[in-house]
Amino acid sequence: MSTWLLPENIADVLPSEARKIEELRRRLLDRFRSYGYELVMPPMLEYLESLLTSGGTDLNLRTFKLVDQLSGRTLGLRADITPQVSRIDAHLLNRQGVTRLCYAGNVLHTRPRGLHATREQIQIGAEIYGHAGIEADLEIQTLMLDSLHLAGLSKVRLDLCHAGVLAALLELEPAAASLGEALFDALASKDVPRLAELTAHLGQVPREALRALPSLYGDASVLETARGRLPNLPVISRALDDLAFLASQANGAELMIDLADLRGYAYHSGVMFSAYVDGVPNAVARGGRYDDVGLAYGRARPATGFSLDLREVARISPVDARGSAILAPWKHDEPLRAAVAALRDAGEVVIQALPGHNHDLDEFAFDRVLVERDGRWTVEARQHDAPGNTQPHP
Amino acid sequence: MSTWLLPENIADVLPSEARKIEELRRRLLDRFRSYGYELVMPPMLEYLESLLTSGGTDLNLRTFKLVDQLSGRTLGLRADITPQVSRIDAHLLNRQGVTRLCYAGNVLHTRPRGLHATREQIQIGAEIYGHAGIEADLEIQTLMLDSLHLAGLSKVRLDLCHAGVLAALLELEPAAASLGEALFDALASKDVPRLAELTAHLGQVPREALRALPSLYGDASVLETARGRLPNLPVISRALDDLAFLASQANGAELMIDLADLRGYAYHSGVMFSAYVDGVPNAVARGGRYDDVGLAYGRARPATGFSLDLREVARISPVDARGSAILAPWKHDEPLRAAVAALRDAGEVVIQALPGHNHDLDEFAFDRVLVERDGRWTVEARQHDAPGNTQPHP
Repeated sequence: MSTWLLPENIADVLPSEARKIEELRRRLLDRFRSYGYELVMPPMLEYLESLLTSGGTDLNLRTFKLVDQLSGRTLGLRADITPQVSRIDAHLLNRQGVTRLCYAGNVLHTRPRGLHATREQIQIGAEIYGHAGIEADLEIQTLMLDSLHLAGLSKVRLDLCHAGVLAALLELEPAAASLGEALFDALASKDVPRLAELTAHLGQVPREALRALPSLYGDASVLETARGRLPNLPVISRALDDLAFLASQANGAELMIDLADLRGYAYHSGVMFSAYVDGVPNAVARGGRYDDVGLAYGRARPATGFSLDLREVARISPVDARGSAILAPWKHDEPLRAAVAALRDAGEVVIQALPGHNHDLDEFAFDRVLVERDGRWTVEARQHDAPGNTQPHP
Repeated sequence: MSTWLLPENIADVLPSEARKIEELRRRLLDRFRSYGYELVMPPMLEYLESLLTSGGTDLNLRTFKLVDQLSGRTLGLRADITPQVSRIDAHLLNRQGVTRLCYAGNVLHTRPRGLHATREQIQIGAEIYGHAGIEADLEIQTLMLDSLHLAGLSKVRLDLCHAGVLAALLELEPAAASLGEALFDALASKDVPRLAELTAHLGQVPREALRALPSLYGDASVLETARGRLPNLPVISRALDDLAFLASQANGAELMIDLADLRGYAYHSGVMFSAYVDGVPNAVARGGRYDDVGLAYGRARPATGFSLDLREVARISPVDARGSAILAPWKHDEPLRAAVAALRDAGEVVIQALPGHNHDLDEFAFDRVLVERDGRWTVEARQHDAPGNTQPHP
């Protein structure tokens, strides 16, 4: 086996892509900061139980396990940062008021999501704890759309959904609640015959409402249709009001309501949003409200947030992070050293050509050279046919 | 077991520390970039053999192992990024000329280096491949000192050493080469009686030279002493010349030559540098030449580089990354929304107080508020006794 082979669905990030990721990482963290989100860095490894307090079987199967020599216990390599940040809010900061936290870090998955999907993502996200009102959800939605805008993704579709609608319908009848995963699968795949079969034995109100969900899909007018086809319960009215408010604040994104889009239903407790861009089948960013997650760490707090995979967003982003550079010779010469230092301090990239070599670069375009003219070091445009190498060591 | 407990020697990084780390991370990566170093991001996980091509038993013991479900093979969670970057240079980029690469990422260790040491570091570093001359080592030394300067560490001691001196002495006599680890241990601990014992059976030249090494310790004048006490071999003269050149370019750092400081001897092949600051027993940054590492990936290339742990350097850095913030009310009001957006775009942190809450913050000091005066939203200094909470939702 060659030592340079990497595991399947694991890849190095090479310079041009890495620069783009770094540029987007900074833009997003700066934007989060401008909203007052405080950065935290939870560890890559935790005791497995701490990582799996929420998220169910799927998260467990996706989490790499290893043994801690110091404790003999099983550790997990994080597959999601969100539960870690909830733990920090619930236990470590333990503030009474509103807390805004953000993060950016690697997560690893035992299995790829698809044939060509990476098993190593760079998850970046922002969370608000301590406020149950729609104002927090709106801030998160705005920040998610802002983030995609900063990545240069101008045409974004925002999908909105609400976990409370299904929860209210399932509470109408114990038999409905027991349908569980089968029902979520039928709804997620909009499998109408299967849904008819599963709901056949339910009372009329939950049966008709559940069967209606797959068709409650479309622009904001769907919310009015939903008011006619779903039972008039306070929880459902409130959910539809909240969705209508968020839909009115979509900041130019194309809007789609999908009341049957229940991915993450077990985890979320309120509004849920996903962002899509043309040509990419999966959501590029996801978020929503998940009020009960902190309970596992001893303190239930209202919570809402979003996250995205920086590698994926950088891949589809049109942002060009390639820079230009000045090629300078290497010489043991104080005025040259000073000229190079001054250019670097002014934000320029100055590459000193080490004696006798070519200098290949992916990330920078050499468009200028530093040359000595009449005893002064000056920057000049580079001749197009000039080679990247330099004179021998003087 | 409480779900909020973390494994021993593993800790969350909370806002004020995280902000400082992020600030230093950017300063250092920007500085590396200004020298033309291209950023790469190798994966957290690789096949174990790929991670352990160099570094010996110690690296193996420090590396967490886990099983890859896709291949059934053992993966390692990286404990050092340097070999990964050598792999990228040797195999993936496969350039003929000089390549400058840099990186920043988490590394994990099965065992802490000391009682309170973290098992999770953020390793940041820079490497030059393809140039065997001292110019590359000088650039790395300069960049290492620059990096500590950017972290606000003004009083730095630079320790220089050279792996070639010992290598040349060991080549003088097969019996010397076979002393191996015992000899390195005696030299590292400056254990003169043990050294006398180990070298008793050697010929006069290697015996006297090896016994002299522990005393070849001090300022640059040690290099002249060394010329008298070490055999006059071309490799040794060249090594001493290189050290003298680097010592003359220490940019204001206090200089220490230590010809017996052979940590990493098995790995390094030329000059080695370590940086120390007052009050911290271990080196805060380390580097040196390691020309043969790429061979394991199919291509031996001259290589020299350095790295440091961002968490450790941030901990001792006097840089204050705490910012100030403007507190704004929450109101569904277009002029307010526009005022907040404009302030954020101008680089301000504006925190919208969600209705009915206090807003506690570690990272920001609320020194200003956004208030409505005569129908216009304006920023004013915050009264010292004003609470962080706000009026109810209007």
